[in-house]
Amino acid sequence: MASRTASPLTHPDIDDFDLFKVMSALTDETRLAIVVALAASPGLACSVFRQDATASVLTRHFRVLREAGVIHQQDVGTRRINTLRKEELDERFPGLIDLVLKESAGRVTPRANASSA
Amino acid sequence: MASRTASPLTHPDIDDFDLFKVMSALTDETRLAIVVALAASPGLACSVFRQDATASVLTRHFRVLREAGVIHQQDVGTRRINTLRKEELDERFPGLIDLVLKESAGRVTPRANASSA
Repeated sequence: MASRTASPLTHPDIDDFDLFKVMSALTDETRLAIVVALAASPGLACSVFRQDATASVLTRHFRVLREAGVIHQQDVGTRRINTLRKEELDERFPGLIDLVLKESAGRVTPRANASSA
Repeated sequence: MASRTASPLTHPDIDDFDLFKVMSALTDETRLAIVVALAASPGLACSVFRQDATASVLTRHFRVLREAGVIHQQDVGTRRINTLRKEELDERFPGLIDLVLKESAGRVTPRANASSA
């Protein structure tokens, strides 16, 4: 999903995190599934999720998560690698991500064979 | 806003609270303003908020909050009285409402002269 012609990936600083933007980002089933997968397996490439949605839809979901500060994205070769910004989210909004992960149990199906390949 | 012809007001049990429905309900400026006002002044009537939006829009916002379990509504005469279900929300989703109230500071304007009249 990485593109050589794309704009640089921008990430909000922790001080600019907006709780309501974060909560809004987390109230979508596809984005929640991405967050749950990244909590279990940091460093997953966007391509791992392609079976769940079309590339353009996925790109939008990843962008919403990145712009809210929920995930960090980095292009490595032709792959876009994703990690959850859990430590920063925990510092800024204590307990929120743990609550989200706990309440997501039974709601989204963990990706059994997710890998960073 | 109370109506003699309206359906009975239904409220979810605490066990049926859905974090994602609650977060979704809280990511709207008007609903957030209602929650902030009710946190400071329990028992406000819907009519108190009429200056902020039309009656039909307000009715929808209050219904979203009620159906998510965020507020309790009760018809008293011709008035519909609202209270935040803070104790139940705190029990089910520890810290969430306090976080929302803290982060709402500076985002929504507290109603200076709100009363239950």
